[in-house]
Amino acid sequence: MSKQELVVLGQDDQSAGCCPGMLTAPLDEDQAADLAKIFKALGDPVRLRLLSLIASRAGGEVCVCDLTPAFELSQPTISHHLKLLRQAGLIDCERRGTWVYYWVLTDTLDQLSTFLTTTHKAEATA
Amino acid sequence: MSKQELVVLGQDDQSAGCCPGMLTAPLDEDQAADLAKIFKALGDPVRLRLLSLIASRAGGEVCVCDLTPAFELSQPTISHHLKLLRQAGLIDCERRGTWVYYWVLTDTLDQLSTFLTTTHKAEATA
Repeated sequence: MSKQELVVLGQDDQSAGCCPGMLTAPLDEDQAADLAKIFKALGDPVRLRLLSLIASRAGGEVCVCDLTPAFELSQPTISHHLKLLRQAGLIDCERRGTWVYYWVLTDTLDQLSTFLTTTHKAEATA
Repeated sequence: MSKQELVVLGQDDQSAGCCPGMLTAPLDEDQAADLAKIFKALGDPVRLRLLSLIASRAGGEVCVCDLTPAFELSQPTISHHLKLLRQAGLIDCERRGTWVYYWVLTDTLDQLSTFLTTTHKAEATA
């Protein structure tokens, strides 16, 4: 199964129209519940660093063996954080031989980015 | 004090270069800690609905008296969530007479949006 197929399969529900920009209309309860789960997964420094490590890697994916050395944390702890990111739809992974490889799910990130985008940015510039 | 002054004063530290797009480079520990606090504030459905209610209001601000009726929650609970959003730098407020008026801090929202923006969006389209 290709990486591309995984991205599309995993993101069908969320890319189907959930959560337009927050300036468009107030979120309803279901939209807010869905989005809050994802933001909650981002509300931890270790998970944010893991996500940015994965996202910034040239080639778009990274071996778990390259993630663990970047933290003074145990492998099970890192795995736990990666699992939460994955459950939130922010990353996905695939085992190849000994190692598991991770990549970001851009649809989810773009959905969050769209939700947070404001249009009166220029007015707030110092 | 004008609304514009509050926005600029409140956001000096965060608009000074923290947290480029996650594809640019991995976050360092301080950047991750700062961003995680903000994402944590967004990791709650009530706070997300409050934020989107404030952000989507024509005119850019909303009286607390118009926020409370949208929820089946007590005024102190709403106030608590608004306080957490304010502490995260996502909104600010000003008392005028009887009521407090809230508005979103666009610099913070744009900072988060920039962090989450990915550049290979087209590849993930179904």
